[in-house]
Amino acid sequence: MNPRLEKQLNFSLEIDKEKNIFRQTHLSDFGRRENDAEHAWHMAVMAYVLREYSNEKIDISRVMLMCLIHDVVEIDAGDTYAYDEEGLKTQKAREDAAKERIFSLLPPDQKEEFIALFDEFEESETPEARFAHAMDNLQPLLLNNSNNGGDWREHRNTASQIYRRQSRTKWGSESLFEYSDRIIQENIAKGNLIDDSHDQD
Amino acid sequence: MNPRLEKQLNFSLEIDKEKNIFRQTHLSDFGRRENDAEHAWHMAVMAYVLREYSNEKIDISRVMLMCLIHDVVEIDAGDTYAYDEEGLKTQKAREDAAKERIFSLLPPDQKEEFIALFDEFEESETPEARFAHAMDNLQPLLLNNSNNGGDWREHRNTASQIYRRQSRTKWGSESLFEYSDRIIQENIAKGNLIDDSHDQD
Repeated sequence: MNPRLEKQLNFSLEIDKEKNIFRQTHLSDFGRRENDAEHAWHMAVMAYVLREYSNEKIDISRVMLMCLIHDVVEIDAGDTYAYDEEGLKTQKAREDAAKERIFSLLPPDQKEEFIALFDEFEESETPEARFAHAMDNLQPLLLNNSNNGGDWREHRNTASQIYRRQSRTKWGSESLFEYSDRIIQENIAKGNLIDDSHDQD
Repeated sequence: MNPRLEKQLNFSLEIDKEKNIFRQTHLSDFGRRENDAEHAWHMAVMAYVLREYSNEKIDISRVMLMCLIHDVVEIDAGDTYAYDEEGLKTQKAREDAAKERIFSLLPPDQKEEFIALFDEFEESETPEARFAHAMDNLQPLLLNNSNNGGDWREHRNTASQIYRRQSRTKWGSESLFEYSDRIIQENIAKGNLIDDSHDQD
C-alpha cells in the first residue's frame, strides 16, 4: 500500500481509542460519564451553531478542527479533571509525550500541521483558540446544569474554582459568558456549588 | 435570555442524545458497540486527514460539518444497520419526521441551513457529499477489519451485500475504494464474509 495512506489509516485507527477515555461530566438525563470523542464532537457542532457569538472574526473550520483533535493526547495521558489541582501539575509533561507519539503516526507534514493546531489551542492566543476554549467550557456546563449540577456536587466544587475556569469563556465570547455566569449563579443559589465568595472577607 | 441563543442552546442540549444511539459496529480492540456521536467525530477527523484522496476538489469544512450532523436524525429514528433490508424500507419516513422535529429547535435560518446540509449528504450528488459518504463507509470498515471482521461474521453478511454499499466509496474516492476492496477480499479469503460471487453462475 501507498506508505503515506498506510500512515494516515494507522493514525485513524489509533484515535479510535479516544472513545475509551472517560471524563467527569455526565450525559444529560442523568446519564453515564461522557468520553472524549463524544465531547469533541459536541464541541465542534456547538462551535458551528454558536459561531456568531465569537468576540472576534474566526475561521470556523479551524475552530471545529481544533475542537475535534484537542483531546487526542488523552489516549495516553488520560483525562485530567479541570478542578484536580494535583493532576494539573503533571498534565503538561504527560500530554507533551502523548502528542509526540500519536501525531508521529501521521506523515511528517500532517504531524506538523496537527501539532501546530494542538499547540494553538493550548496557548489560547488566537481568536479561533479562544472560541474553541469557550466551547470546551460551555459544553460540560450545559450538560452539568441539565443534571442539576450533579458533577459539581459530586466533586464538592466551590464557586471560585468554577469561575477560575469558566471566566475564560469571555475571552472567546462575552455573550456566552453572560449565560455561563447566570448558570453558575443559579447553581450557587441551589447549593450545587459551594459559595466561597466571602472567604477572603 | 436572547430567544435566539435559547433556541441554539436547546438544540445543543438535545443532540447530546445522539451519544445514546448505538450502532452495529464495534470499537477497535474488540470493544463495545460504537455510538453515533463517536462515529460522526471519527468520520470528521478522517475526512480531514484523508482529504487529498477525494476524486474532486472539495470544501473540507462542509464535508466535516456534514459528517458531524449526518446522524442527528437517529435520535428519534434509531440506527438502521446498513445491511438490514426491512429497516431500510421505513428509514426515510422515520428520518424525515426526525429531521423536522430536531432541526426545528434551531432558529429558522439555521434550521434551513442544517436541513439543506443534511439533504445534500443524503442525496450524495455533490463532491462534498460523496466524500462524506466515503468516510461513512470507510470508518466502520477500518474498525471492523481491525476486529477480524467480527461485525460481518455476527450478521452473516455476504460479500455482495458489503460491495453494494462499499463500492459507493469510489464515487468519493477511487483510491480509498482500492483500499476497501482489498480489505473486503482479505475478509472473504478469511471466511469473515460469505462468498456469494458464484450464486448467479
